[in-house]
Amino acid sequence: MICLVYAHPFPDRSRANHALLDAARELPTVEVRSLYDLYPDFAIDVEAEQEALARARIVVLQHPIYWYSMPGLLKHWLDRVLVHGFAYGDGSRALAGKHCMWVTTTGASEHGYSREGVHQRPFADFVPPVEQMARFCGMHWATPLIIHGIQRCTDPMLARYAARYREQLGALAATVERERT
Amino acid sequence: MICLVYAHPFPDRSRANHALLDAARELPTVEVRSLYDLYPDFAIDVEAEQEALARARIVVLQHPIYWYSMPGLLKHWLDRVLVHGFAYGDGSRALAGKHCMWVTTTGASEHGYSREGVHQRPFADFVPPVEQMARFCGMHWATPLIIHGIQRCTDPMLARYAARYREQLGALAATVERERT
Repeated sequence: MICLVYAHPFPDRSRANHALLDAARELPTVEVRSLYDLYPDFAIDVEAEQEALARARIVVLQHPIYWYSMPGLLKHWLDRVLVHGFAYGDGSRALAGKHCMWVTTTGASEHGYSREGVHQRPFADFVPPVEQMARFCGMHWATPLIIHGIQRCTDPMLARYAARYREQLGALAATVERERT
Repeated sequence: MICLVYAHPFPDRSRANHALLDAARELPTVEVRSLYDLYPDFAIDVEAEQEALARARIVVLQHPIYWYSMPGLLKHWLDRVLVHGFAYGDGSRALAGKHCMWVTTTGASEHGYSREGVHQRPFADFVPPVEQMARFCGMHWATPLIIHGIQRCTDPMLARYAARYREQLGALAATVERERT
């Protein structure tokens, strides 16, 4: 039901993303595709990825922000997996009608993403490439979960974010389930 | 003087980007780093890339748009090359003061990048991640060259774009040269 595409370039160094991932895993029917574990050499099994997507009704993209965007392997995954003849073109719309939820973490605080902050722009300015990719594929864009200042997150804060993630994704799954029946 | 980082996932299929690249190559002191030729296995030589950047005063990023962004290998290059301790952090500012010029091509027409178009948003909405990356590194953001509808470009149109590229990059190089003397 849920295909969770996870991309952390350094899985071992990721206390926060790991905790979030564990929270999502508590939901039933979550299939995690941990890209940097599966494809450390970037040799993506396109067919396996497309099959995993085809099985899902919800596609979650979870990753830390690298250079205002997704890590390189996830971008490569988009380029290789969501291709003409699968995601779009020649009548193909393999992802149409599915729901896409974006879950991402940043190092800087929310203030860092403002005109006065270190990143000079609101975080919303960096959302369009991801959101429009989902929309172009005909997916519904769910409310994303964007967590700022992840490195300075205390354990209780992290537990709250994890609970929010589980709740938000669980609610989406329940909606999708109701749609189906 | 000019480090031209070129990223086309299918160099053989790129009539337009190749013509543009040839135009840029006519300028003196251009060093082309063709990432998909250099690193088909994604195993980037970080030191070689950092040295090429250090030698340059102008950094050009040239690529076709894939999913409203750069191809995966170029994103991976950003993640691996522009790291803490080189591009930023601990007093490192290896790229500060250099000029960054973005040269990119799209399949859709300019109208495709509008509220009524197939991509639903103006192309300007997809610029911030690239521009802010340059600015965060302390680079000057030069006027980018964005060419829409590249597949339907006739040979004469392509020749005009190539000339514009050479002219725009040449003018930037002349400015930088004057700054130095």
